[in-house]
Amino acid sequence: MKKVAVVGATGYTGVELLRLLVNHPEVELTQVTSRANAGSRVDAMFPNLRGFLDLEFSAPEPEQLADSDLVFYATPNGVAMKSVPQLLNAGTKVIDLAADFRINNVDIWSQWYGMEHACPDLVAEAVYGLPELNREAIKHARLVANPGCYPTAVTLGLMPLLESGLIDPDSIIADTKSGASGAGRQANVGTLLCEAGDSFKAYGVQGHRHQPEIAQTLSLVAGQSLDLMFVPHLLPMIRGIHATLYSELVAGQLPADVDLQALYEQRYKDEPFVDVMPAGAHPETRSVRGANMCRMAIHHPQAGKRLVVLSVIDNLVKGAAGQAVQNMNLMFGLPEQTGLDTPAMLP
Amino acid sequence: MKKVAVVGATGYTGVELLRLLVNHPEVELTQVTSRANAGSRVDAMFPNLRGFLDLEFSAPEPEQLADSDLVFYATPNGVAMKSVPQLLNAGTKVIDLAADFRINNVDIWSQWYGMEHACPDLVAEAVYGLPELNREAIKHARLVANPGCYPTAVTLGLMPLLESGLIDPDSIIADTKSGASGAGRQANVGTLLCEAGDSFKAYGVQGHRHQPEIAQTLSLVAGQSLDLMFVPHLLPMIRGIHATLYSELVAGQLPADVDLQALYEQRYKDEPFVDVMPAGAHPETRSVRGANMCRMAIHHPQAGKRLVVLSVIDNLVKGAAGQAVQNMNLMFGLPEQTGLDTPAMLP
Amino acid sequence: MKKVAVVGATGYTGVELLRLLVNHPEVELTQVTSRANAGSRVDAMFPNLRGFLDLEFSAPEPEQLADSDLVFYATPNGVAMKSVPQLLNAGTKVIDLAADFRINNVDIWSQWYGMEHACPDLVAEAVYGLPELNREAIKHARLVANPGCYPTAVTLGLMPLLESGLIDPDSIIADTKSGASGAGRQANVGTLLCEAGDSFKAYGVQGHRHQPEIAQTLSLVAGQSLDLMFVPHLLPMIRGIHATLYSELVAGQLPADVDLQALYEQRYKDEPFVDVMPAGAHPETRSVRGANMCRMAIHHPQAGKRLVVLSVIDNLVKGAAGQAVQNMNLMFGLPEQTGLDTPAMLP
Amino acid sequence: MKKVAVVGATGYTGVELLRLLVNHPEVELTQVTSRANAGSRVDAMFPNLRGFLDLEFSAPEPEQLADSDLVFYATPNGVAMKSVPQLLNAGTKVIDLAADFRINNVDIWSQWYGMEHACPDLVAEAVYGLPELNREAIKHARLVANPGCYPTAVTLGLMPLLESGLIDPDSIIADTKSGASGAGRQANVGTLLCEAGDSFKAYGVQGHRHQPEIAQTLSLVAGQSLDLMFVPHLLPMIRGIHATLYSELVAGQLPADVDLQALYEQRYKDEPFVDVMPAGAHPETRSVRGANMCRMAIHHPQAGKRLVVLSVIDNLVKGAAGQAVQNMNLMFGLPEQTGLDTPAMLP
Repeated sequence: MKKVAVVGATGYTGVELLRLLVNHPEVELTQVTSRANAGSRVDAMFPNLRGFLDLEFSAPEPEQLADSDLVFYATPNGVAMKSVPQLLNAGTKVIDLAADFRINNVDIWSQWYGMEHACPDLVAEAVYGLPELNREAIKHARLVANPGCYPTAVTLGLMPLLESGLIDPDSIIADTKSGASGAGRQANVGTLLCEAGDSFKAYGVQGHRHQPEIAQTLSLVAGQSLDLMFVPHLLPMIRGIHATLYSELVAGQLPADVDLQALYEQRYKDEPFVDVMPAGAHPETRSVRGANMCRMAIHHPQAGKRLVVLSVIDNLVKGAAGQAVQNMNLMFGLPEQTGLDTPAMLP
Repeated sequence: MKKVAVVGATGYTGVELLRLLVNHPEVELTQVTSRANAGSRVDAMFPNLRGFLDLEFSAPEPEQLADSDLVFYATPNGVAMKSVPQLLNAGTKVIDLAADFRINNVDIWSQWYGMEHACPDLVAEAVYGLPELNREAIKHARLVANPGCYPTAVTLGLMPLLESGLIDPDSIIADTKSGASGAGRQANVGTLLCEAGDSFKAYGVQGHRHQPEIAQTLSLVAGQSLDLMFVPHLLPMIRGIHATLYSELVAGQLPADVDLQALYEQRYKDEPFVDVMPAGAHPETRSVRGANMCRMAIHHPQAGKRLVVLSVIDNLVKGAAGQAVQNMNLMFGLPEQTGLDTPAMLP
Repeated sequence: MKKVAVVGATGYTGVELLRLLVNHPEVELTQVTSRANAGSRVDAMFPNLRGFLDLEFSAPEPEQLADSDLVFYATPNGVAMKSVPQLLNAGTKVIDLAADFRINNVDIWSQWYGMEHACPDLVAEAVYGLPELNREAIKHARLVANPGCYPTAVTLGLMPLLESGLIDPDSIIADTKSGASGAGRQANVGTLLCEAGDSFKAYGVQGHRHQPEIAQTLSLVAGQSLDLMFVPHLLPMIRGIHATLYSELVAGQLPADVDLQALYEQRYKDEPFVDVMPAGAHPETRSVRGANMCRMAIHHPQAGKRLVVLSVIDNLVKGAAGQAVQNMNLMFGLPEQTGLDTPAMLP
Repeated sequence: MKKVAVVGATGYTGVELLRLLVNHPEVELTQVTSRANAGSRVDAMFPNLRGFLDLEFSAPEPEQLADSDLVFYATPNGVAMKSVPQLLNAGTKVIDLAADFRINNVDIWSQWYGMEHACPDLVAEAVYGLPELNREAIKHARLVANPGCYPTAVTLGLMPLLESGLIDPDSIIADTKSGASGAGRQANVGTLLCEAGDSFKAYGVQGHRHQPEIAQTLSLVAGQSLDLMFVPHLLPMIRGIHATLYSELVAGQLPADVDLQALYEQRYKDEPFVDVMPAGAHPETRSVRGANMCRMAIHHPQAGKRLVVLSVIDNLVKGAAGQAVQNMNLMFGLPEQTGLDTPAMLP
């Protein structure tokens, strides 16, 4: 049994991580930290864990955290980077579910996240934790930057097209929609039931932190820089991301010898957590609710110049906590599906 | 045209009051106050009012407020009582949508609201603004205490039974359910979409401020003190209250000469804002969404010892802002339905 | 008082039309028809109308309908075209809220709607009822084809850009999202609360009936045919459409002398039912809930090659019943805002 | 590995049962039947099962079903009773998730379910599958009647009080609220998102099929017949039941030596699927979403004459499919928690 700790587990990503870890057969949760809630039981805040987790929140003490084999940071941006160096020095592996280590270019990171980076040298070492792209590197990583939720849905949806060179990288438009849990568990007027419920809107049209993260990964895949249009929207529901991904065929039309459905199925045939649906399908976010799965469908409407990919994930699972456990499994040399092999809850 | 002002219009009761007042043909909204938002446009906070209200929030200044014929307080509990005396002295009428003047017994009020009353002498003068009970007094009032949302739904549902003496006043159980807008527009973890959405729970089972308010009015109607069981619940939706009201027949069974349906229809036949539905009906909260209406049905299940009344209102309209406008109409000598005569929005 | 009748008022468009008409000061509702429900009270099906409409459903009889000054068809596609000729001959005006008269090319219409047209000669006479485009023609029309809900939101959002020639007409992508009321009130597994609730998906990616309708109008505005990508999605809520509209600047960048905000404000400054929000805004669907209003914002993200327009309507109001009443007002020579001048319900 | 089959798995109870069974380590799903969908893949209807269940729906053939060790009926009422005798004769065990074998008195059953019983002799043999009441009998049963959803929540909530004789059995009022999945997956106007969403109502106040089922079990526990008031309501959400249970103390007050919290904790201390929350708690339905758990709290408001129990379950899990698996485990001699030991999904 490996020992793991979770720092900052009072948000939605945190509680979802706890839900997955208490059922994981190969790890023992030894610490769950929250400075503000130290001394109170975790299951008093999250009653779904009653009977599954007999721990109190503790204050985060680096020495104690270093006793773990791996530490998850489910903290706000800018927290992990302050203590990660100490943990790595002690031989403890780290998965950061926030954004501290996602952007390679530290200047761009600082511009979007509004602070200086505390350990820029570790940014280069950190592995971007998208197993479908970086599996081998993750296996040997000490420090994994768990991808953002939108970036996971968008990147997985577009990788086969970019890898194949079929689409113009500068033509991509990612129209994305997320449930409100993506906004976190902070007291905030904007995500009250009476504000975000029964309504729909775009946000961040002028710019959003996930844009540079997605652009960085897609550029890497495409082998060239690219001009990405990214517009997020807020859905009146709790969990789920739907990405509608538009792009233009380089040739203006589909080459006669290309079978898009086969391209996608082939690319992901060995991936346990990517599901290419049958041709013509429209994946629903509920089909992945609670599951570590990205379900997608590729469309070529009216056989025209554009392609449309529909890609759905549960933002708290494949978009956060589930992907973190998937990365942990890889880092520990465990079968990748350990503790993650359960169907989504529908309805 | 009467001049009216709204103090503290940044909450849900406030914006609903503004929605009703901008369309009211006999009043002019001259001031909308909010200390925190002074100087910013009201329709920047509430874009549904764009084109209907060309005002900025102003700081509440008693001298300016006194220029109005009537001032509504849509403030937290304990605010109105501090400035109401000054306004009344200046000849300005006041309707308080909070609880400062609802409870006759100032000691009980202090116990439930956790503060001393600033003008206990005015509590006796204030008229409890339930027109179906106190219409004549409201017409001549300077100061009206607008009833709470739960009290409105419960009291209207039970008045015919208590007035007729058919039920045991000590047998009443009010199982009530409210949409989340009843909890207000404050940033609060408990009413986030991700906390209050897609879930249901009771709250305040050990005691809730509306219990003494309801008990006071029902006792008055019954002509005796009574033992009221009141349990509120939080619905995963925005607007609407449903009260399920249980009571036992004094005689253990219904007297042969009593027609419950007729009793209810007769009691409310002249009431513009109470609708007794046909026998056997189950009123839905959506049937009153946005409307100043209490819709109800009376049931006598299995012809047994108990009666069940189902009573629904929109907590923001007949449970707050709409009833306040109804009271204002009465205080101004206007036809009671002025500005309120619109159907609910369904679906 | 003008006499109006509503044919087929048992759906969501129908009940919304009734809600607006019972409060309209210049019309009298003389007939509400439904073959299946003939003889039962309208307000038994729609309790929000109790006290506002004292009618039973009647069977649709062309002779009786012809007694009205105007007849609304809120029927499924293909119904209106069968009796409209008779009504027009009798001198009765008609507004069809379905699609029978929206597409000029009858062959294209037949292809998308799967039936032959019953009166192709009237298709040419029918005026497409988008007042912001065809106001004068509507005033003199006998027969108005009320636009579809998506077409209204998309067309109003793009008209200023196409009229100005700023964007490439072939670059338009309309990513649209609709509440479930757009799917109607038929018993259907796909729109059950447990299927469409708490989830999100695209539909009709391969083709949707509103695509040719939008393309027809935008082509007319642009003065050239165009290649429109249109993808609709289903929102887990009842009312509201949000269109996110992408296009590319003809010049690859914005000409230095163009102020997009001013362009939009100028184009719609005299329109009572179009609201251009301040620069940088993100309109919410709830800001138009229940109101005959299209609210929009124009964005030029990162000063790049693409523009983004956000456009919201209530699909049942500006997207159906409200626009029909607006058209009726024009056809009757009434002030256009009569009966429609109320703010949206928020929250 | 035991072989199990599911008859009629196209509803919500069915898909939930499949979700639980595909992850159960001791059973193999050999058949999933649906006459209407025979030949189509199960995961085409329920995409959450993609990758977990490689079966097509088959037509229900008793001979084939008899090859299983146990057959679940997730069919409408009245279906199971027609083929159960044949299966039992073949030595196959049966769990009926519908109501065919829940009511001991066949006449009462016929009265509420509107049909004659096809095998009244088996009604007496069938064991009511509430493990907390009938564990030993279930272990040895051939035929288990899986309890209704409301009956599970209400019975578990009241058993300690009735067993202890503290409350007057004739004073019980069960005010219950259920998510819409309890109404099934049939196309039905009443449970459309646009009808049942964003609204709340009571139903069946004059009588509901679960009333006699609950009364039967509570009478058995109390050792006397009782007069039960049962009012169900429909919540605007998918999963979850909340029962608010009122009763009066026999003595008019709580005996001085009784500790209610201890009474409940003691009664359920060995029950893996009943959780007595700390004193003063208000269980939320989301705390059991997707989990086989009944969470409850006991209140004695104002130390008065009445008690209030709050009891929540997921209607599809502890109220249906999860309880069925729990019963199966008992019938197979497996540890009771096998395949059911996972936390609820929150948020």
